[in-house]
Amino acid sequence: MGINFRVDGADPSCKGRIGSFQTPHGVVKTPVFMPVGTYGSVKAMGPEETRALGYGMILANTYHLFLRPGHETIRELGGLHKFMGWDGAILTDSGGFQIFSLKNLCQVSEEGVRFASHLDGSRTLLTPELCVQIQEALGVDVMMVLDQMATPEDPMEKAREAADRSARWAARCLAAKTRREAALFGIVQGGFDPELRVKSATELSAMGFDGLAIGGLSVGEPRETMTAMIEACVPHMPADKPRYLMGVGTPDDLVIAASLGVDMFDCVMPTRNARNGSLFTSAGKVNIRNAQYAKDPAPLDPDCNCPTCARFSRAYLRHLFMSGEILAMRALTTHNLAFYQRTIMAIRAAITEGTLGTWAERLLAPAGEEAP
Amino acid sequence: MGINFRVDGADPSCKGRIGSFQTPHGVVKTPVFMPVGTYGSVKAMGPEETRALGYGMILANTYHLFLRPGHETIRELGGLHKFMGWDGAILTDSGGFQIFSLKNLCQVSEEGVRFASHLDGSRTLLTPELCVQIQEALGVDVMMVLDQMATPEDPMEKAREAADRSARWAARCLAAKTRREAALFGIVQGGFDPELRVKSATELSAMGFDGLAIGGLSVGEPRETMTAMIEACVPHMPADKPRYLMGVGTPDDLVIAASLGVDMFDCVMPTRNARNGSLFTSAGKVNIRNAQYAKDPAPLDPDCNCPTCARFSRAYLRHLFMSGEILAMRALTTHNLAFYQRTIMAIRAAITEGTLGTWAERLLAPAGEEAP
Repeated sequence: MGINFRVDGADPSCKGRIGSFQTPHGVVKTPVFMPVGTYGSVKAMGPEETRALGYGMILANTYHLFLRPGHETIRELGGLHKFMGWDGAILTDSGGFQIFSLKNLCQVSEEGVRFASHLDGSRTLLTPELCVQIQEALGVDVMMVLDQMATPEDPMEKAREAADRSARWAARCLAAKTRREAALFGIVQGGFDPELRVKSATELSAMGFDGLAIGGLSVGEPRETMTAMIEACVPHMPADKPRYLMGVGTPDDLVIAASLGVDMFDCVMPTRNARNGSLFTSAGKVNIRNAQYAKDPAPLDPDCNCPTCARFSRAYLRHLFMSGEILAMRALTTHNLAFYQRTIMAIRAAITEGTLGTWAERLLAPAGEEAP
Repeated sequence: MGINFRVDGADPSCKGRIGSFQTPHGVVKTPVFMPVGTYGSVKAMGPEETRALGYGMILANTYHLFLRPGHETIRELGGLHKFMGWDGAILTDSGGFQIFSLKNLCQVSEEGVRFASHLDGSRTLLTPELCVQIQEALGVDVMMVLDQMATPEDPMEKAREAADRSARWAARCLAAKTRREAALFGIVQGGFDPELRVKSATELSAMGFDGLAIGGLSVGEPRETMTAMIEACVPHMPADKPRYLMGVGTPDDLVIAASLGVDMFDCVMPTRNARNGSLFTSAGKVNIRNAQYAKDPAPLDPDCNCPTCARFSRAYLRHLFMSGEILAMRALTTHNLAFYQRTIMAIRAAITEGTLGTWAERLLAPAGEEAP
């Protein structure tokens, strides 16, 4: 078994590539962006709507589903795909990121992470083995190893310890895996030190995962730090396995990271921003609360063919948003997810045309440099 | 012009009838139930979804749209249909009910109702003439006259005064109407006194409205009081015009009132109950929060063919609801509206078969009488 990742084309102007891999729930073309469905629902979207926007793979959160409704409940009900009515592919994170970032009284030891539920305070020891068991109970297509991340404030020594422990935990996850049809990805850590990143990437590459992720980025560091870490990792990650940049990012981040050789992305940004009234458009950001849209009959983005732009004016969307209508959340989320999917399609097209490198360079250029 | 109401069949076992009327946005078959779209959106639903459930007419709230975004804004944007992307018929209430029930510092005089906005406290004098102007600016298919209702606690004298004033205001609304293509309905008042109801119905019938509503009911009175008032009004309302019972009600209320000759209904119950987790099913009410559904793989209602029942289990719906997911609101609202539309279809079929009277009697029988 394997996910049969195949590189179908590369952009000579950068490290960008297009490809595909197989899952029990369909072929996934890369680069791919995965909308986030924390509790088994991409917020505000029905599964058929997410699919209709072109998405074939989503991310769900192991930690949240473990606490509610519980992985055994989902297993009894036929697995996460059946539970949520989604027939595309599903990747679950390991839960570690939530445990560390929710700071819910977590204590880390070699054994695992002991944490208190943010819902009822109940205490659990999440070991690498349990992490895999939970994801296997959910029946997802791609599982992630339990890892320990460093924050930008952590001293180098702490980042090194976290990366070393992550590597040991990764090996334990691999050993605990029993479902042949599910893929398991390792996660490169190493904080913000290029050498630690290289060491982590090299160690994890040797373990035989189905793919490798770059973890611990997009946690508040400057963009150049993030791109430096990606550039440090990528050459030491297998070229014949998908590379997944966790929790990233803005549409520009996607372009830049894809040009550095990243194949997979997930981020709450399109869905969360939409619920806050912040929209991505081809003319830049739009905050729908702005009074200037109160009588604006134009669609959010004239260049967008999503159901929201086909149907509703900015004036109506603003009215719905200001009135607290649920339809606002739906319509705005739909638009942002459509924008992200269009960005991904544009990235794939640019790779085919050999222009992704130029596109990324333009985004990375200091402001003003590109003026005529 | 006129709405060309036509009675297409009557049930000999009761006063129930099937019929139809024309609007600039399609033919409406009666009995009809109108979902409520207070702010120009049936809460949690997209317009195409409401349509797909079989609905061809909805209700919107004059008061709320007057305050936000304002009727002139909606007129400038092409009217309410275009604003909200709904191509079916729209009826707007007069706003009076909201003003009186929100108790927002309203002062009633012969001139109209002076009230303070619940949003920003700004003061407005809503006259019968302004009421029609607002609804004409919205461009709706059926407008309602401004009326003054009595509460169950009001003494008879106050109910009489309110009914008399409502009749005078109704005449002023009729005189203020300028849009030939829009229909205008009068509203029968008279509190809970059958004689006042007869007087009001008789007076309004003589004025030549396109249809008549029964207002001021379903405000906390016992069901037998409500049915007694309907029975008092109906014989004195034109048989060749639609009869609309405002703000009613439960599915059983629809059956009973239709058997008494009512043709039109609206109520927030299916949508509001859904958002509170309370569902109508063929086996009775279901509160989706109940722990008994935590692992229940069955659909909400095995006899329902709505998109929610086709797709999601009770366990998943409960999980979504308990997790505060927006999809819960959508899926549950869809189901309740499907249940209401199925009830309406069953009422129409019962009228055709001549069995609505028996159905209504069974619902009205004191508990125990129908066993075994």
